[in-house]
Amino acid sequence: MTIRVSQDGTILRLTLDRAEKKNALTNDMYGALTAQLDRAEQDDSIRVILIDAEGDVFCAGNDLNDFAAIASGQLRRDQIKSFEFLHALARATCPLVTAVQGPAVGIGVTLLLHSDIAVVADDAKLSVPFIDLGLVPEAASSVLMPMRIGHARAFEMFALGKTILGADAFSIGLANACTPRHEVLGRAYEYARKLAARPPGAVRATKRLMRNAVALEAVIDQEITVFAERLTSPETAQALQAFTQRQKR
Amino acid sequence: MTIRVSQDGTILRLTLDRAEKKNALTNDMYGALTAQLDRAEQDDSIRVILIDAEGDVFCAGNDLNDFAAIASGQLRRDQIKSFEFLHALARATCPLVTAVQGPAVGIGVTLLLHSDIAVVADDAKLSVPFIDLGLVPEAASSVLMPMRIGHARAFEMFALGKTILGADAFSIGLANACTPRHEVLGRAYEYARKLAARPPGAVRATKRLMRNAVALEAVIDQEITVFAERLTSPETAQALQAFTQRQKR
Amino acid sequence: MTIRVSQDGTILRLTLDRAEKKNALTNDMYGALTAQLDRAEQDDSIRVILIDAEGDVFCAGNDLNDFAAIASGQLRRDQIKSFEFLHALARATCPLVTAVQGPAVGIGVTLLLHSDIAVVADDAKLSVPFIDLGLVPEAASSVLMPMRIGHARAFEMFALGKTILGADAFSIGLANACTPRHEVLGRAYEYARKLAARPPGAVRATKRLMRNAVALEAVIDQEITVFAERLTSPETAQALQAFTQRQKR
Repeated sequence: MTIRVSQDGTILRLTLDRAEKKNALTNDMYGALTAQLDRAEQDDSIRVILIDAEGDVFCAGNDLNDFAAIASGQLRRDQIKSFEFLHALARATCPLVTAVQGPAVGIGVTLLLHSDIAVVADDAKLSVPFIDLGLVPEAASSVLMPMRIGHARAFEMFALGKTILGADAFSIGLANACTPRHEVLGRAYEYARKLAARPPGAVRATKRLMRNAVALEAVIDQEITVFAERLTSPETAQALQAFTQRQKR
Repeated sequence: MTIRVSQDGTILRLTLDRAEKKNALTNDMYGALTAQLDRAEQDDSIRVILIDAEGDVFCAGNDLNDFAAIASGQLRRDQIKSFEFLHALARATCPLVTAVQGPAVGIGVTLLLHSDIAVVADDAKLSVPFIDLGLVPEAASSVLMPMRIGHARAFEMFALGKTILGADAFSIGLANACTPRHEVLGRAYEYARKLAARPPGAVRATKRLMRNAVALEAVIDQEITVFAERLTSPETAQALQAFTQRQKR
Repeated sequence: MTIRVSQDGTILRLTLDRAEKKNALTNDMYGALTAQLDRAEQDDSIRVILIDAEGDVFCAGNDLNDFAAIASGQLRRDQIKSFEFLHALARATCPLVTAVQGPAVGIGVTLLLHSDIAVVADDAKLSVPFIDLGLVPEAASSVLMPMRIGHARAFEMFALGKTILGADAFSIGLANACTPRHEVLGRAYEYARKLAARPPGAVRATKRLMRNAVALEAVIDQEITVFAERLTSPETAQALQAFTQRQKR
């Protein structure tokens, strides 16, 4: 499955556990994450979700084999689980703490825009180079990223694939804290425990007011439409073919 | 009444004058503030409103006795004057300059989101710990605060009650200036005088364009609905009971 | 015409070429800029638009003679070309890189809010003193500027005419880079070339998703209505008269 699930009191910990593939997210991993997010919405014994990752890399983004499978029609639209995951993120009222101990790419970064608390390693490299695959922003990041860091900076990340360091992510408000790599998880747990100690009804009501889930889901759907078009574009076909050939060698 | 009203040329000064209770706002004080905001909308001789406070504390937030009175039903919905005040703030076209010379809590901070110019003491402690009472953000701050400082920082202030210093409020754009405490009022007056010297019609038209009053009032109403539910929740009852017992000792 | 048009590979360069008048934009210049923006939307051989300026000043804003001509009725509403330019900016999907080598005023600054990449000279002075003419923000800046730098800072720029330096514009996210004056154009070209090398379909799709053109055009129309009212106000008449008399001397 490669998502490791554990519960520590009222904290639900979801660990990306596919370090040998840099924690690139597969269709199955999205499915597992969605199931856990949905469970946290139903289960009052869960007060906080903490997402972290095994190994040196936080998340290399979407598994490119899955993009290729979608592009080639091997994976049909109704089988794609990442879309459901994005909607679950947008709807979630359970607070989400994310611990980014190393490099994050694509969904590994846009996930931060749905995290209520984010701790990043000060030397972690963050990038959203959808453009290199001929693709566009997802997870409502086309709206949330400019809202968070301004259009100019967001455009440079999306259209030029600019990488930023964790320390800079912190200073422009993408993260609540940046720490040395080995302290990231501890710091994230500290935040999670504090959150878990607050009146849970008020925490969820606060999050619900702070995020317009309906609007976010509409943006996500709009992005998905364009994303799906792009996946079958010559620009993307060429990029994915180059990737597949590198894999075969 | 505990709101001191004075006019200096075209500047209407409203001073929170309840220093012995840390300028906590009572139902009557909200009523008085609303009346002055409404007056400024009608009266062309008023070009700027300046809000400041007596004593060492800017504003300790809503008077908790009033929250308890609302929760217990002693204060009926149609008697609550804070709601009208929030709507008056959202609708105001007269520019508002706020001078925060000391600690600010709750409405004392969310007021800054409706101020056009805010001067804060560099050592002033600002916090919005609605969560500690089992409550949620108000004054459209559930939307305005994330818009101003980003979701991650805003969530930490709302859901974890994080305190920030005036100097940090300035650096993240919550204030136009931070100064030593004793210079706050002088600096705020300087801003007010400059504003008063500008073409008043253009100033109000600019403010009107920059703020979507209709949208803000809708957010305020949505927050009030949740706030009212929370006020009668067990979480809040417990917090208010603890407060009332401390008062009696 | 005073807009110099040149094409360098897939980069369309538009140079404000009226240095003797500090590149103040005339009705004709707006018309020429709009025509080029429209052309870039149709012509796939254009991948990036780069706007720069001749001389020491980037742009002194709208030519005041044209404001006076509009106010006096010499220029009829249907002859005003700046409005069309603003709409073309809002609709543009071709990425826009702007090189601000010197002082920028009014539209010279609000243009940055529609630029995807902006490079500014670190000592360039930026201001939007519409208020001094009794006027209000344009180019959707009444919404885009607070969204980018927060209401408090934006209000100070609009209602008090505050000037900021290029270096500060960079640090608050109004620009992607600030450099010494003589390196601005080179740096902007570097950005433009990198953008031109990316999959063009994905670049335009990304920009389209990141900007809500429909919403921006609605804001622009709302501002234009107020702007037109203000142009015939006594406050503006007085300011324009003072300007015209200075011209005659």
